[in-house]
Amino acid sequence: MTSQTLTPSLATLARETREAARQLAIASTETRNQAIEAIAAALEAASAEIVAANQSDCEAALAEGLAKSLYGRLKLDAEKLMAAIAGVRNVGRLPDPVGVRQIHRELDDGLVLQRITCPLGVLGVIFEARPDAVMQIAALAIKSGNAVMLKGGKEAVRSCEALVEAIHRGLTQVGLDPALVRLLTTREETLALLHLDQYVDLIIPRGSNAFVRFVQENTRIPVLGHADGICHLYVDQAADVPKAVQITVDAKTQYPSACNTIETLLVHKQIAPAFLQQIIPALQSKQVEVRADEPTRQLIGDAFSELTPATESDWATEYSDLILSIKLVESLEAAIDHINTYGSRHTEAIVTEDAEAASHFTARVDAAGVFHNCSTRFADGFRYGFGAEVGISTQKMPPRGPVGLEGLVTYKYQLVGNGHIAATYTGANAKAFTHRNLTD
Amino acid sequence: MTSQTLTPSLATLARETREAARQLAIASTETRNQAIEAIAAALEAASAEIVAANQSDCEAALAEGLAKSLYGRLKLDAEKLMAAIAGVRNVGRLPDPVGVRQIHRELDDGLVLQRITCPLGVLGVIFEARPDAVMQIAALAIKSGNAVMLKGGKEAVRSCEALVEAIHRGLTQVGLDPALVRLLTTREETLALLHLDQYVDLIIPRGSNAFVRFVQENTRIPVLGHADGICHLYVDQAADVPKAVQITVDAKTQYPSACNTIETLLVHKQIAPAFLQQIIPALQSKQVEVRADEPTRQLIGDAFSELTPATESDWATEYSDLILSIKLVESLEAAIDHINTYGSRHTEAIVTEDAEAASHFTARVDAAGVFHNCSTRFADGFRYGFGAEVGISTQKMPPRGPVGLEGLVTYKYQLVGNGHIAATYTGANAKAFTHRNLTD
Repeated sequence: MTSQTLTPSLATLARETREAARQLAIASTETRNQAIEAIAAALEAASAEIVAANQSDCEAALAEGLAKSLYGRLKLDAEKLMAAIAGVRNVGRLPDPVGVRQIHRELDDGLVLQRITCPLGVLGVIFEARPDAVMQIAALAIKSGNAVMLKGGKEAVRSCEALVEAIHRGLTQVGLDPALVRLLTTREETLALLHLDQYVDLIIPRGSNAFVRFVQENTRIPVLGHADGICHLYVDQAADVPKAVQITVDAKTQYPSACNTIETLLVHKQIAPAFLQQIIPALQSKQVEVRADEPTRQLIGDAFSELTPATESDWATEYSDLILSIKLVESLEAAIDHINTYGSRHTEAIVTEDAEAASHFTARVDAAGVFHNCSTRFADGFRYGFGAEVGISTQKMPPRGPVGLEGLVTYKYQLVGNGHIAATYTGANAKAFTHRNLTD
Repeated sequence: MTSQTLTPSLATLARETREAARQLAIASTETRNQAIEAIAAALEAASAEIVAANQSDCEAALAEGLAKSLYGRLKLDAEKLMAAIAGVRNVGRLPDPVGVRQIHRELDDGLVLQRITCPLGVLGVIFEARPDAVMQIAALAIKSGNAVMLKGGKEAVRSCEALVEAIHRGLTQVGLDPALVRLLTTREETLALLHLDQYVDLIIPRGSNAFVRFVQENTRIPVLGHADGICHLYVDQAADVPKAVQITVDAKTQYPSACNTIETLLVHKQIAPAFLQQIIPALQSKQVEVRADEPTRQLIGDAFSELTPATESDWATEYSDLILSIKLVESLEAAIDHINTYGSRHTEAIVTEDAEAASHFTARVDAAGVFHNCSTRFADGFRYGFGAEVGISTQKMPPRGPVGLEGLVTYKYQLVGNGHIAATYTGANAKAFTHRNLTD
C-alpha cells in the first residue's frame, strides 16, 4: 500500500497527469467547453477508425467465446458512436460545477471568507467492457476540471485506444495537455492505480458488486461506488392496489439488471389477499420468477402454480434478474425493520394512501432514496435532473445516491484580509467577529 | 476487519446505540434542544461530583508522573467545567442542521423530489486526555441527531464516567435513551470500535498525527480527521513588509501547537533583505527558534546570531512548537511548487499587494484554505462562523477544512409520486421530465 510498490513508469505517468490536472484546474469555463467540443469533433472525424477498431475487438471476442451479454456491451457501431458523441456535447452544455460560491461571509470589516468549488484533481475510473464509457468519462472529467486515468476491459482495448487517440487530438487542438486523459491497458496497472494515493484523488469503479468491493478493500483513495443494490417495495395496508401493481411491475421488470430494481416485495398481511391475486399473474406474465415466504404460499394456496419458497438467503440477494421474492409483514414497523436489516441503503419505496404511514417510512428507513407511490427506477442522476450521472453511491456520507457533476468537485476556503491577525480576536480585549453573510 | 473479531458485548452495545440513534433521528428540533438543556442542567447539578472525580484522576496522574502538558489538559476545575457547560448551551442555540431542504424539484407533474439532511447515525469519537471534550461531543451529537460512542484517555476515566453519568440523567429526564451517549473505557474497546462498520457511521479521532493515521489505516469506517498541519506563509516580492511581519508573528506564535500554525516561511528573494532584518528579531524576541536554508543564511551574513540550518526534513515537519524554518524562493511559482510538494493541504497564505499574484496563488495552491494578507490562524470553525467545530479535515473530498455541524449529517432523496413509473419516460414515446425547481 505504499508508493514503493509502484512500477516507476506508472508513477511518472500519474505525476504528469496530476500536473496536467493542475493546469486544467485554472482553465476557464470556455476553454473546458471548447475542449469538449473539440473532443466531439475529433471523435466524429475518427469514427471510421473507431468502428473498425471495435470490429477487431468484437471479432477477437467472438473467437474467444465472450458471453453474449458482454458482447452486446462491447459492440460500438456507428449509431452507438454517434449517440455517445451527442452525449459528450450534452455534457458540454451542463452548468459549470467549478467556481461555484457556496459561502460568502464577512468575518470582520475587511476580512472576507468565500467557499468556492474546485476540481478534485485526478480521477481513476475503472470500467468493464463498454468502450462508450471512455467518451462519457472523458467529457465529465474535462467539464469538472479534472484529469482522468482510465482502465477499460481488456476485450475493448483496441476500441479504447482508438477513442483515446481521438480525444488526445481534440485536447491538443485547443492547447490542452493530452496527459489529461490517460488510458491504462493492463491488469497490473489497475492494481498499481489503486496504490497511487499520492496522485489520484478519487476512484470510480464501474462493474460488478464483487469488483467494487475488491476496489474498496484495496485502496486508501476515496471510492465512489455502490457495492450492492438490494431495494424493496413495501405495499402498505392502505395501498391503492392498481397503483401497487403498476409500480411493482415497473420496479421489477423495467430494467431487471439495474441496481435500482427491486429484489423483494414486502406486503402487509391485510392487503395481501387482494394484492397478491393481481400481482402474481402480472409478474408471471412478464416472465418473472416469483419466490415467496411460507405465509404467502399458505395464503394463496393453490390459486397459482406453486411458487419457489423464499428463504433467508433470498432477503440478502441482489438477483439482477427477473426474480422477485415476496414476504408478508405484520406491520409497517416490520417492513421498516426488514429493510433496515437487509437493504443496501440504495432506494426503498412504499405504496400507501396513508400520509402518516408514508412519512413514518420516509423518516425511519435508512437509504439514499426513500420513495412514496412511485417506482424505485427513478433513482438515477438523469431522472433527478443532474444532467449527468457519475455513479450511485450507497455510502452514508455525502455524496450519497445518484451523483452528478457535483461529485467530481471539492472546494477551497478563500480568506482575504488586509493584515488581519488572530490575536486581535483573542483574550480579554478580543474584538468580536461580525459573521455577516454577504449577498451578491 | 470483520464483525467476527468483535467482543460480542461491544457489538451488542453498539446495536443498542444504533437503535437509540434511529429513535433520535425522528425526534423534533425542540426535543433535541431540550435534551441539550437537560444535559447542561444535569452537569451543573453534578458539578461537585465531577470536580471531585477529576481531582482523583489528577492525583493518580501526578502519582504516575504524567507530563505537565497533559496534566494541564486533564485538569477540570469548577471554572473550566462552567465554561464547558456554557459551550453545551451554545450548541443548543445553533441552527438545526437536520431537516434542511437542499433540493426541491418537480420531475414531472405530481412527481416531486426533495433532498433533505438527516443524521449520520452513530459517531465514534476517540480523544485524548481532555475530559471537557465529552461535554462538547455529546452536545454536538445530540444537536445533529446522532448517537455517539466515545473513548477518552485512560488518565481521565473517572472524570469521563462522572460526566457521562450526568449526561445520562439529562437524557433520561427528557425521555431519551441514555444509550445515545456511550462511554468506552479500555484500549481493547477502541480497537473493536474501529471494526464496528456495521453500526458506526463516522469515526472522529482527536489526537496526535500518528494516532489519526493509525485510525485511518485500521478502519473501513469513514474518518473525519487531519493527519498533519504543515502550513506555509509566502511573503511575495510585492508584500507590504509591516503586514508581513505582523502576520508571520501571529501565524507562528499565537498558538504554536495548533494545526493552523505555520511551520515554514517562504520569502521571495527580492524582498528578503528588507523583510528578514525585521522578521528575524521579531521572531527571536518571541522565543522562536529560527531555522534557515543556506541562501537565507548567506544573505543575512552575521547580522544575527547564527541560525540553525534548515534541511530537507524541516520542510516536511510539523514542529507544533516555537520553531520556524525559512526558505528563500526565486519566484511565486517556486513558492507554489514548494507548498504543493510539502504542504499538508491544510491552510496556506500569501502576503502581497499584487492582486494578480494573490489570485494565481489562490488558484494554484492545493489546500483546504488559501489565504491572502491574513493569518493562517483564522482557519477554524468558530472563526468561520460555523458556531461549532467538529474537526478540521485535510482530505480532498468534502467535508474539507474546518467542519461544523454540517459534517455530522448526510441526506436522503425523497421522491413522492402518485403511481408514477419509469416506463412512462422511456422508449420511443417517452414523456419528457419537466425538471422544474420549486421555490418555497
